[in-house]
Amino acid sequence: MKASKIFSKTQKTDPSGEISTNAKLLMKAGFIDKLGAGIYTYLPLSLRVIRKIEKIIRSELNRIDAEELLMPALNPKSNWEKTGRWNVPEMYKIADEEYGLGWTHEEIITPLAKKFLNSEKDFPKSLYQVQTKYRNEPRAKSGILRGREFIMNDMYSFHLTEEDLDTYYEKVKEAYLKIYERCGLKDYTYFTLADGGAFTKGFSHEFQTLTEAGEDVIYICKKCKLALNKEVEHKKCPSCGEEDFEERKAIEVGNIFKLGTKYSEAFDFKINDKNVIMGCYGIGVSRLLGTIVEVFNDEKGIIFPKEVAPYDIYLVDIKGGEKSEQLYKALEYKGYDVIFDDRDKTPGEKFSDADLIGIPIRIIISEKTLKEDSVEVKKRGEEKSVLVKIKEITKYLEKC
Amino acid sequence: MKASKIFSKTQKTDPSGEISTNAKLLMKAGFIDKLGAGIYTYLPLSLRVIRKIEKIIRSELNRIDAEELLMPALNPKSNWEKTGRWNVPEMYKIADEEYGLGWTHEEIITPLAKKFLNSEKDFPKSLYQVQTKYRNEPRAKSGILRGREFIMNDMYSFHLTEEDLDTYYEKVKEAYLKIYERCGLKDYTYFTLADGGAFTKGFSHEFQTLTEAGEDVIYICKKCKLALNKEVEHKKCPSCGEEDFEERKAIEVGNIFKLGTKYSEAFDFKINDKNVIMGCYGIGVSRLLGTIVEVFNDEKGIIFPKEVAPYDIYLVDIKGGEKSEQLYKALEYKGYDVIFDDRDKTPGEKFSDADLIGIPIRIIISEKTLKEDSVEVKKRGEEKSVLVKIKEITKYLEKC
Repeated sequence: MKASKIFSKTQKTDPSGEISTNAKLLMKAGFIDKLGAGIYTYLPLSLRVIRKIEKIIRSELNRIDAEELLMPALNPKSNWEKTGRWNVPEMYKIADEEYGLGWTHEEIITPLAKKFLNSEKDFPKSLYQVQTKYRNEPRAKSGILRGREFIMNDMYSFHLTEEDLDTYYEKVKEAYLKIYERCGLKDYTYFTLADGGAFTKGFSHEFQTLTEAGEDVIYICKKCKLALNKEVEHKKCPSCGEEDFEERKAIEVGNIFKLGTKYSEAFDFKINDKNVIMGCYGIGVSRLLGTIVEVFNDEKGIIFPKEVAPYDIYLVDIKGGEKSEQLYKALEYKGYDVIFDDRDKTPGEKFSDADLIGIPIRIIISEKTLKEDSVEVKKRGEEKSVLVKIKEITKYLEKC
Repeated sequence: MKASKIFSKTQKTDPSGEISTNAKLLMKAGFIDKLGAGIYTYLPLSLRVIRKIEKIIRSELNRIDAEELLMPALNPKSNWEKTGRWNVPEMYKIADEEYGLGWTHEEIITPLAKKFLNSEKDFPKSLYQVQTKYRNEPRAKSGILRGREFIMNDMYSFHLTEEDLDTYYEKVKEAYLKIYERCGLKDYTYFTLADGGAFTKGFSHEFQTLTEAGEDVIYICKKCKLALNKEVEHKKCPSCGEEDFEERKAIEVGNIFKLGTKYSEAFDFKINDKNVIMGCYGIGVSRLLGTIVEVFNDEKGIIFPKEVAPYDIYLVDIKGGEKSEQLYKALEYKGYDVIFDDRDKTPGEKFSDADLIGIPIRIIISEKTLKEDSVEVKKRGEEKSVLVKIKEITKYLEKC
């Protein structure tokens, strides 16, 4: 993509009225536009990141035999009355309260699953969607970490025995950890014990990513690194017995929950006269983008991890002429997603935009580097750059 | 995908309460589930078709330099008040009328474009999205042809001169025709003159697909095959002068429209003191799925065109044992999407499901065909089948 053709533009100053780092950086770098409190347009740059996150999620969930479908946001009132959740404050109601806008989908998936899962051999079954959700959110001050409209991946699993749910639950846990790892968040994300609530014995679990922007507080056992949500009694680590914890701010990037039979009871979903046992699992897709930005940034801008960067390479042309265009085409031909900064701007402005947008690798091609048949390569977040011969550039990039 | 693992199941009888062919067939074949009037869940089979249609649309629109973004469905009232469209009956209003749910996006894209398109060199620009839209639809009896919640591709272009808009408009027309062609609808879809309304000189244009389920009537010139919408004066064909027309029922699968300066005026979007000139373009994605089903079906079920079929091959196993499993894996390895019917059902039941679901190619592998080291191949919609040697099957399929 030529930078001169990209719809959005970077801004020199912070947007007014935004207090969260993710919204400030994403607006300044031209990734999102604010339409209202907690309501954002995903501009082309951020949509590319969202799609990459979605692709990672799909690939990991398909691997554990989950099937993708897409449920409506318009949810009939009657479904929600069955579970007593119609009058929760989160619900946006429309059309004289005929519908609510779904903020989770147990009320829809349970009667749907009941239609098609009719006998023992249909179990276990796991279904997921990547869908836009709506939530009447009074606190919409955290940019895309907490929106009134947001993209969510929610999954629901159906089982005949507790043991079977336990087995699948472990698989989902591993899949989720893999997803955060591929999003670059492995070292910052803790599998966290949380209160299981009224419907489950034992704990539910959250995935919490350490960041000062987090609205949650977690306690990390200093000995075994198990994390506990603040709701949990934590005088002693339930794993190793340690009593010393580190308190950290964190953002919940996912949760997994053994629902038990709460929803199958509400919709009378039984096999052989026994209520079906359910699990539910959720990852906020747009929240993940916001979290990545909160975790990976410096004074110059965003620093995207490799697999979720909107582009792989930011190619800065400084009077490189035809050679620049050739290199741009060669890199794209090799499968790299490249921003080719062909704009009539100073080198300094181009470097500054490259840093702000946060593309992992910056390549400079200029009269000076061409004298040595080379380009200058710098990784985002690192200070030093190296000179690489043009004919060796793809070999070099493979190692990056 | 093993048929035994697919979430949905085919039904032996038509669903009750549905009058449209597309909803009947799609529900019977396990593609969609009805949640309410005009509100459907896309089950895994139909989501595959939707994704294929979206992929076709993206590839053709990217080719004409359009950029993808994603706007919110939650639209602030103030945007719609500026254009006088807040109180239209289509609008679902929520949260004490703070927001409406977007059923089109001129009110959002125009002020957004104004933020980033600041000088002559930023033009022309074309932006699109694939997004879920909502419409308060009293007539929701046409299955997914006319829903209260539906998936739409809408695009908006911005120009400095009428001529530039005209040039781009022609490009979009060609891109749209290519999209319908790739969806298998070329022979059924007419580029149709429609009334341009108050905002444009001359005509707007629709893409109308012939089907008895259509709610529109078009008039096709018997001489030059130009089609006119019923709103247009049509005593004489404006292209060739012919006065004889054929009257046909059709469904509008897309439209393209020169908006002129209506929205740029409302949002005071000017360059060099002249209002920006806009075009808008729309394709109903879920409606296209419904249209494909309306056009391509027989008494046995759906007949999907190749490029939008949920799977390429329906492999029926009749006691083929290990050889069946091997063939299934070999076909998937070659890149074909295969439903492998491994279920404990009679051959008749499997054939009947293959026909109902409408996969383009059915392959039968049985004790009998294996005696000749062969499989039986039949194209959906054709009567005769042929015996093909297993070792020649991929070569044979390439020609299909």
